[in-house]
Amino acid sequence: MKKNIQPSNITYPQPIALVTCCDPDGNDNIITIAWTSNVSRVPPIVMISIGGEKYSYRLIRETKEFGLNIPCSSILEKADFCGENSGEQINKFEKTGLTKIDSSVIKPKLIWECPINYECKVIDIIKIGGGNIIFGEVVSCMTDENILDENGTVSVEKLDTFAYINKGYFALGKCFAKRGFSGK
Amino acid sequence: MKKNIQPSNITYPQPIALVTCCDPDGNDNIITIAWTSNVSRVPPIVMISIGGEKYSYRLIRETKEFGLNIPCSSILEKADFCGENSGEQINKFEKTGLTKIDSSVIKPKLIWECPINYECKVIDIIKIGGGNIIFGEVVSCMTDENILDENGTVSVEKLDTFAYINKGYFALGKCFAKRGFSGK
Repeated sequence: MKKNIQPSNITYPQPIALVTCCDPDGNDNIITIAWTSNVSRVPPIVMISIGGEKYSYRLIRETKEFGLNIPCSSILEKADFCGENSGEQINKFEKTGLTKIDSSVIKPKLIWECPINYECKVIDIIKIGGGNIIFGEVVSCMTDENILDENGTVSVEKLDTFAYINKGYFALGKCFAKRGFSGK
Repeated sequence: MKKNIQPSNITYPQPIALVTCCDPDGNDNIITIAWTSNVSRVPPIVMISIGGEKYSYRLIRETKEFGLNIPCSSILEKADFCGENSGEQINKFEKTGLTKIDSSVIKPKLIWECPINYECKVIDIIKIGGGNIIFGEVVSCMTDENILDENGTVSVEKLDTFAYINKGYFALGKCFAKRGFSGK
């Protein structure tokens, strides 16, 4: 039986990304984001949505750059911490012990412990409902060599990241199939 | 060691949603979408990105409504099929055998076999790079009763959905922790 329930947020798996940003003086911050998606393949563009006038949103709006760092499960607790606390009060790099590394193109730092690091330049920001939607073009990307397979592409198993759904962090399980397996 | 690679799409888990839409005469279609995200909590708003001038994009642009149906793993092959083929050539409900059910508020049908069904009204569409970004407010929601836990909330285990990453469909594995477990 189907049952009507109150419309609310969509219940489906979303990624977790650690978004790095900084103020004009180069003071760094990290915010953990689940509301993010690819939105364009060529050029590569990503969307992040930040609710309200959060500190990180104000930084990104001002500097127009951010890093998007994909965590592995061994730093899950640090990722959670960066989502539950505001960088206005604390220095999250210091508190978590995460290691900052220089970006190639943008001013915000990237996170060493994250196996994939994207550098993004803001191309648009719009307000939709309670969300501030930031669109960033991916201008550079780094990965850990040890998460690549023999073809030089990212191995999902070696990446060992996780998904967020219904306020829980879930491991990725077995691969059911590859896209296109159903045939045309 | 970190290695620079060509900027491309973000490698992280995204959801799979079966988006239902129809033409003004009520001819139904289904498109499978991974590029989707929550973007606003109050009011509840979802984003979907459709690359190029696809048939479903043209339908949604015209009728300003769509259903967002969350699949369970038992219909994965049908979900894949609806992403690999265009509704301009074939009737995807007929081809897949998926069961259409009436919506409460919108004209597009919903999919019976999907344990959660959201009804969305388009509030904005913008073009970013190669993506047509559609924002829909969730105006109604139905779930299968048998995926609810004893508190009446959706059980991720019972929902049995999957995530999409690097062109593969992955099961959700164990729950590592709930949001906030790191403490403040």
